[in-house]
Amino acid sequence: MTSIAMIEAAAERLAGHARRTPLLSSPFLDEIAGRPVFVKAECLQHTGSFKFRGAFNAISALAPNGVIAFSSGNHAQGVALSARMKGIASVIIMPSDAPVIKIDNTRALGAEVILYDREGEDRDEIGARLSAERGLTLIKPFDMAEVIAGQGTTGLEIAQQAAKAGITDAQVFVPCGGGGLSSGIALALEARAPGMQMHPAEPEGFDDVARSLMVGAIQRNNRLSGSICDAIITPQAGNLTWPVLQRLAGPGQVVSEAEALRAMALAFDRLRIVVEPGGAVALAAALFRPGEGPVIAVASGGNVDRAMMARALAV
Amino acid sequence: MTSIAMIEAAAERLAGHARRTPLLSSPFLDEIAGRPVFVKAECLQHTGSFKFRGAFNAISALAPNGVIAFSSGNHAQGVALSARMKGIASVIIMPSDAPVIKIDNTRALGAEVILYDREGEDRDEIGARLSAERGLTLIKPFDMAEVIAGQGTTGLEIAQQAAKAGITDAQVFVPCGGGGLSSGIALALEARAPGMQMHPAEPEGFDDVARSLMVGAIQRNNRLSGSICDAIITPQAGNLTWPVLQRLAGPGQVVSEAEALRAMALAFDRLRIVVEPGGAVALAAALFRPGEGPVIAVASGGNVDRAMMARALAV
Repeated sequence: MTSIAMIEAAAERLAGHARRTPLLSSPFLDEIAGRPVFVKAECLQHTGSFKFRGAFNAISALAPNGVIAFSSGNHAQGVALSARMKGIASVIIMPSDAPVIKIDNTRALGAEVILYDREGEDRDEIGARLSAERGLTLIKPFDMAEVIAGQGTTGLEIAQQAAKAGITDAQVFVPCGGGGLSSGIALALEARAPGMQMHPAEPEGFDDVARSLMVGAIQRNNRLSGSICDAIITPQAGNLTWPVLQRLAGPGQVVSEAEALRAMALAFDRLRIVVEPGGAVALAAALFRPGEGPVIAVASGGNVDRAMMARALAV
Repeated sequence: MTSIAMIEAAAERLAGHARRTPLLSSPFLDEIAGRPVFVKAECLQHTGSFKFRGAFNAISALAPNGVIAFSSGNHAQGVALSARMKGIASVIIMPSDAPVIKIDNTRALGAEVILYDREGEDRDEIGARLSAERGLTLIKPFDMAEVIAGQGTTGLEIAQQAAKAGITDAQVFVPCGGGGLSSGIALALEARAPGMQMHPAEPEGFDDVARSLMVGAIQRNNRLSGSICDAIITPQAGNLTWPVLQRLAGPGQVVSEAEALRAMALAFDRLRIVVEPGGAVALAAALFRPGEGPVIAVASGGNVDRAMMARALAV
């Protein structure tokens, strides 16, 4: 289980390696929301998403000889760069139909990318064989205590930065897939900003955590593809993240894809940051759902291709 | 004359009011440039440009009852928000053909906007009359010692942030119009990072400062319109900024509009920040001109409309 002590230890490991991302605001966004809005711009983190924090912390804490991960997205890049910074090898396993740009980017960060055929091959079998042969340690995308602790450092920074702005009571909206970031932030806020409550944010049709919180038991998504918010689509919350979410999370926030695109465009106009669709769902909820008092939205990632950004800007 | 003591005093006045903008980097940009590239993301400053620093410092230092400025761009927004934060009135004089969005944005920040007819009215006469009638203090866009001191705080932060990253010797490229930002940064670096030299960056066809530095006397631009880098187009360097530039600046960097657009797209892809064309000329020079050792580029502003950004992303 991840504890506040583990999150504090993660913050020490990340100091001087991860970026302390800014907490941004704009009077124009306050006006739209009808209340003060703050945006934790984690899209400005190394590799363009919060995933770097968890990967770097897990690799630092576990001190492996080499690591392996299954990902074609933000987790892959976070693991690859972290491993390179720690001077160890990384192997990233991706489906052979992953976008070429993602394969190239991950290789450019120093990883060995191994492609598998989704139809004919079992990625877990490939991973297990490589781990055994080469002594690699698996870095999971969210259901791993040291990964959650690393993501939780985002919550420590939110607590400190908000306090400096005079804010101690707030809703904190966090894009949620498997729940690594949201559970880590919830744990950090519980200890360091008890006047703040974390609410997971998800896209319509992939709102398993919002439904899980309503019924008090893990629910699954029916579909796992077909969303522009692909970075935060997972089958269900994790075995480690769910108990934290159940205990600490406020009601889930669910937004449409159109709202996520509008939030991307407003982040462009008013904060001058680039946010990917999945990373914009918390900001969309902050801007377009009624609420009282200050709201802090995490912009969790900015890895969006030029065509998708052009689509958001044409809205 | 602006001194390092004035810049240090400005930093104290701005503490807790201006943002300490991050110094960003990406291995992908280092690869393109063939050397380490750092980007001072001043597009993340309040109102989306460095202009907030100079305006806030001048208003704080001079403690006027109300202020007036001539601007339809970044200076207008910096003055308007600064005045609102200091609780005083601001009057911004703009041509009646200024884009509606700029007029609306400046009004939304609390300014009274007064429009004049470029053909039939004399803006200086209007400004002088209003100043006299209402006791307003003129805040100039660059040729004013306290404005230069405020912009110079960007240089103090560059010196501190670069030192933290282990960099003490570097070229520092800065977008240059009238020279407020570039001269302020040059003064700060002279005192706090003597291993760094400031180089002004300009667009082709509007390279008056590069030419001035070559011949050792103020040169003028032949044209004042027709550039997508409109935010940094001025007739010539100022009476206060030029002597500083002449004494401290390295050779000017001149880039094409196409290079500025490519730099905007790469800042989008690799740093997840929004940079306007004029704000991207220093990054373009850092990426596309050969050089040795680390280079620090200031991304001075991010106020670009959606259509122009779509154009950059389509390159």
